[in-house]
Amino acid sequence: MEPGGCDMGPAVKAVAAVLPAGGSGERLGGATPKQFCAVQGRPLVSYTVRAMERVSWISDIIVVVSPENIETMKSIIKKYGHQRVTVAEGGITRHRSIFNGLKLFSENEFSNCLLQKPEVVIIHDAVRPFVEEDILRKVVMAAKEYGAAGAIRPLVSTVIASAADGCLDHSLERARYRASEMPQAFLFDVIYQAYQQCTDYDLDYGTECLHLALKYCKTNAKLVEGTADLWKVTYKRDLYAAESIIKDSLSQQICIITDAKEAVVQVGFLLHESLRSQIKVEAVSVSLSKCDSHLQNTFSGQCYNFVCINDNKYAIEEIQQLVDMLEESNVPLLHPVILISVHLNSSENTSFSIDLEELTRMKKFAREVKRKNILVYGLLIQHKFSRLPSLKRWSDGSVKTAEIMKRIEYSGIKKDNIK
Amino acid sequence: MEPGGCDMGPAVKAVAAVLPAGGSGERLGGATPKQFCAVQGRPLVSYTVRAMERVSWISDIIVVVSPENIETMKSIIKKYGHQRVTVAEGGITRHRSIFNGLKLFSENEFSNCLLQKPEVVIIHDAVRPFVEEDILRKVVMAAKEYGAAGAIRPLVSTVIASAADGCLDHSLERARYRASEMPQAFLFDVIYQAYQQCTDYDLDYGTECLHLALKYCKTNAKLVEGTADLWKVTYKRDLYAAESIIKDSLSQQICIITDAKEAVVQVGFLLHESLRSQIKVEAVSVSLSKCDSHLQNTFSGQCYNFVCINDNKYAIEEIQQLVDMLEESNVPLLHPVILISVHLNSSENTSFSIDLEELTRMKKFAREVKRKNILVYGLLIQHKFSRLPSLKRWSDGSVKTAEIMKRIEYSGIKKDNIK
Repeated sequence: MEPGGCDMGPAVKAVAAVLPAGGSGERLGGATPKQFCAVQGRPLVSYTVRAMERVSWISDIIVVVSPENIETMKSIIKKYGHQRVTVAEGGITRHRSIFNGLKLFSENEFSNCLLQKPEVVIIHDAVRPFVEEDILRKVVMAAKEYGAAGAIRPLVSTVIASAADGCLDHSLERARYRASEMPQAFLFDVIYQAYQQCTDYDLDYGTECLHLALKYCKTNAKLVEGTADLWKVTYKRDLYAAESIIKDSLSQQICIITDAKEAVVQVGFLLHESLRSQIKVEAVSVSLSKCDSHLQNTFSGQCYNFVCINDNKYAIEEIQQLVDMLEESNVPLLHPVILISVHLNSSENTSFSIDLEELTRMKKFAREVKRKNILVYGLLIQHKFSRLPSLKRWSDGSVKTAEIMKRIEYSGIKKDNIK
Repeated sequence: MEPGGCDMGPAVKAVAAVLPAGGSGERLGGATPKQFCAVQGRPLVSYTVRAMERVSWISDIIVVVSPENIETMKSIIKKYGHQRVTVAEGGITRHRSIFNGLKLFSENEFSNCLLQKPEVVIIHDAVRPFVEEDILRKVVMAAKEYGAAGAIRPLVSTVIASAADGCLDHSLERARYRASEMPQAFLFDVIYQAYQQCTDYDLDYGTECLHLALKYCKTNAKLVEGTADLWKVTYKRDLYAAESIIKDSLSQQICIITDAKEAVVQVGFLLHESLRSQIKVEAVSVSLSKCDSHLQNTFSGQCYNFVCINDNKYAIEEIQQLVDMLEESNVPLLHPVILISVHLNSSENTSFSIDLEELTRMKKFAREVKRKNILVYGLLIQHKFSRLPSLKRWSDGSVKTAEIMKRIEYSGIKKDNIK
């Protein structure tokens, strides 16, 4: 029953996920349903989908949206390059939407359905973007054993029952109760059977899947303590919080870009390996000129820190191209962007030859783009280094960059550009 | 029973407030208890105290803190110029802290107590900074009538009870229950009697004041639907949200500074009157050179927009002084600061005489401070204007400033400084 290790999926035949995203977001007080609200320029639902698709053992992700949002959702999937995602049409309530999503796996009803019926299905709100693989694994394993499982959290407030006159009837003892959160997971047959049997009243007024599994399949869900980041974006303040959390995580993330030359790719790979335990690294091994959609995404608000490795001495054209893309993305308006151009000196001559004219041009360029909130640093390093520079988290880019520059031999744009 | 109007307090003899602020903030995951965490450079508790002291009919505010934080709290009160606030020493649990706060009003136990025993006492968490006068009034009026009252909110998540084996026992029907929030209010004698009678178990393990009033005084609290901003800062994400909400509100706030000359003060007053229905206006009618603590507060992160009115033509020295204060406060690092220098042309000569040298100096100055994220604009207006310029909300300073500049005759620093 135990998963074999961190990289292995749960010992379950197939796992799929259904993400109800049909809500109107009336509690948010805005016209746009909260799952489609932009957070750092990207719709909230896209973060949640990304959190799910990062989990390799989830085979299919069904996003259920109201009919008027199907095209929007499809364009989000296309724009952000989401994989393994199918859009389903929602019903008028949450339960009806989830049921519609589950129906996609039922070959009897949709004979031309291409989706494999999973052993376990995860149900997770589209407005809970910070779900981690660990809790997904826990609920899936528990669902396999108990038939149903759901994440719970301690209650933040005391829960009270009111009498008919609007006065306090009684308050619940906080320690005995829990808030039922998401993700939840079910043996597919359990939850599907529950939905098939439940009444229209359940479908219209209920919200809790665990309750249906208990009522119609006599399945007492296993309750799994979740972490604080399972919270649901409900109010405007939650969007603010989500934005800050995402910004925080983006500033601790780095994108490595190399061209396709073998030596350069190799250095990019080594850098990636040496950094990955300390910071989230996106390695993009493509030439900037062949800009693909993945790279486009990285620029559209999803990364603040770039290391661009090449073996042209100053590579001002490549950097200019990157700066253009960044400017177009508006990212530098929101946050300073750090861009380190690393030149690998692969010549046999171990002493750096500094081309003063090129250097002056690069410095001037760096001064210009600094006004646009893009901080360009240049590193000229020996190819035959004994070990890679040990980069640390650099949420405050400038300080850490200074640190990096102290650690390794460098040339190019120097300290005058470091605050 | 009804309050007479917006400016009148509830028809209650005396109202006081007790703010328990003794929590350790363990759910926040930081070393600093959440009530002392800085939000825009100012401790969270200070925002809550300010929200209470703005309500004129609350006579005393007791902040109950743990013994080790008494000095911290006293220095916060001093630094932010809080009024009508008394610091009390908390106990080891929430209930013991509240009880300690209430004891300050009980002359029997503290014979040298100077605080008047209130008819109604409000109990409000120090970590709910966005409480409005309206809900305070409602709970106080309801407490006067029913003996006790508390704000409630709909449940965000379904509440479930777990069985001994960690599985779902049952889930509560969400519509029948409510989350009990703050503020709450009580007839002082009701809540004080409840605390005097309750057991050590209640004091150590209970959290809910409404429950004590019911259990020991047979008082069924009136439940009052609150607004979404009553939420409690519990997790780190809540601090992020609080920060964003406060930033939003600061950018829609303006501080008017005039010197002490009658004509100038008069214009400042008129501007204040014409703006107050649209934007929160802090009018500070003092000379910048006699800088008092209130003005200091305004600079230390509490305002982004300033209008400085004077009758010296360019007043570059005054503006320089303001810029120095702002720089010292670090505010411009976090947010662009808008500073409009208004010169009243009180001379009989209705045509503006532009001193080109002065103008050049001012323009140069504006360009320099712009790099520090302080945007200086100059307005030269006729004293005998028929009506005041109608300023609108300017959360985006530059655009609205351009609008203002279009509306009125101006000279001084012109469009070259408007993006």
